[in-house]
Amino acid sequence: MKQTLHVIKIGGAVIDDANQLASFLQQFAAIDAPKIIVHGGGKLATRMADQLGIPQQLLDGRRITDADTLRIVTMVYAGHVNKNIVAALQAQGCNAMGLCGADGNLLLAHKRQHASIDYGFVGDVDWVNIQLIEALLLLNTTLVVAPVTHDGKGSLLNTNADTIAQEIATAMSLSYEVVLVYSFEKNGVLLDATDETTVIPRIHPTYYQELKEKKIVFEGMIPKLENAFAALEQGVSKVIIGKATQLNELMKGTAGTTLEK
Amino acid sequence: MKQTLHVIKIGGAVIDDANQLASFLQQFAAIDAPKIIVHGGGKLATRMADQLGIPQQLLDGRRITDADTLRIVTMVYAGHVNKNIVAALQAQGCNAMGLCGADGNLLLAHKRQHASIDYGFVGDVDWVNIQLIEALLLLNTTLVVAPVTHDGKGSLLNTNADTIAQEIATAMSLSYEVVLVYSFEKNGVLLDATDETTVIPRIHPTYYQELKEKKIVFEGMIPKLENAFAALEQGVSKVIIGKATQLNELMKGTAGTTLEK
Repeated sequence: MKQTLHVIKIGGAVIDDANQLASFLQQFAAIDAPKIIVHGGGKLATRMADQLGIPQQLLDGRRITDADTLRIVTMVYAGHVNKNIVAALQAQGCNAMGLCGADGNLLLAHKRQHASIDYGFVGDVDWVNIQLIEALLLLNTTLVVAPVTHDGKGSLLNTNADTIAQEIATAMSLSYEVVLVYSFEKNGVLLDATDETTVIPRIHPTYYQELKEKKIVFEGMIPKLENAFAALEQGVSKVIIGKATQLNELMKGTAGTTLEK
Repeated sequence: MKQTLHVIKIGGAVIDDANQLASFLQQFAAIDAPKIIVHGGGKLATRMADQLGIPQQLLDGRRITDADTLRIVTMVYAGHVNKNIVAALQAQGCNAMGLCGADGNLLLAHKRQHASIDYGFVGDVDWVNIQLIEALLLLNTTLVVAPVTHDGKGSLLNTNADTIAQEIATAMSLSYEVVLVYSFEKNGVLLDATDETTVIPRIHPTYYQELKEKKIVFEGMIPKLENAFAALEQGVSKVIIGKATQLNELMKGTAGTTLEK
């Protein structure tokens, strides 16, 4: 039987809220099994760009990443957010190690090509260094991955953290039974986007098609769910979506939304 | 016979100059033996603090590190500088991995205590994680260490890069023959601080005492030399001080200043 590996994406407003982040990290540190965090940090980067007077362009929710923005993303995500999470986990006896995709060639990506839009320094992942992740897990380290990759030619690239979590989860499912958790500020996938009590506990692919057809799943959730079902198709055992501060309950299946094939 | 490990500090103006940094990294990547970079990045942090309107206090050349300054130091050193060095080395086929002292509990430190001065979040190193460094070197990774440590209780700490290089070099000398290089913008230890052609090729401890007594060694160099001789006392085989863009020559002993017991 394969060992279980937890790949947990933490994002959105939770990173910005010291109390919520601390609660999440405490529950995360207590997971007594191999585990990886992938984090975002979007709002802090936007704030830093404002403070430095660098205008930000967003297109369909994706940041257009010019050289100045890449510098900010690298500083905030791979520096500030990553190292503070690592230090907080170390304080709880969890041997965290923070990496971006360039470190040890963890995540190789290419600059996004698009017919009409220049996304700038935005990367799409081509390859996950499974061997490195396995070696570091065997050293009993917990990886904390910042959403910055590289192209192998010297450029860092800004990369969506949800996608990185999915890519790592999928790649590691060859040798581990992988549970992928997307944790954020919401309770889970909601039947009514305005009502946090309407969490859908379980979604199977056919039910997802139905929800999409009836336009019940709200728009911001669709990329997450598409990623999640793609991960299940590619070998991930289970995907859980829910509130970061309820991580224990998410793992037990008593909160959030669980997706299974 | 022990294997040779190179611990190379890169600092000062070289980090700020893209061409000099590229030249250094190219020569560094070509070293066909286990190697570690420890980098600074002081001027970039000062510039960022200016841009963000955060006043900087320096005392005897040491930055007083309040919470805002620690945030900048973490962003600039452990984020921007560290990850750009890593990406540049990866592009040259050198499997670099960037870490700060919190990552994998690499460098445990304590907040500096001083009778009259509050240095803020400045750390002095207590312990180097030799086991982690050995394991990562065995994975054929080249460590790139940012001058940020942690106290094991959740706080990151700003720590002098020269000292980190010395601490790592000393700790690793138990299992490796360690060559410690302090590389920067100057040609080496100079007889006349204003004349770059007056490099002293070799300094032994008795000669150093003589230079100090005659006040030939200029002030900014004394902490570096004190660190260097302390490292030699504690097991490091050789210390070389010189110009970062002449790394090849420094290693061969045809440039810079070599210190030996």
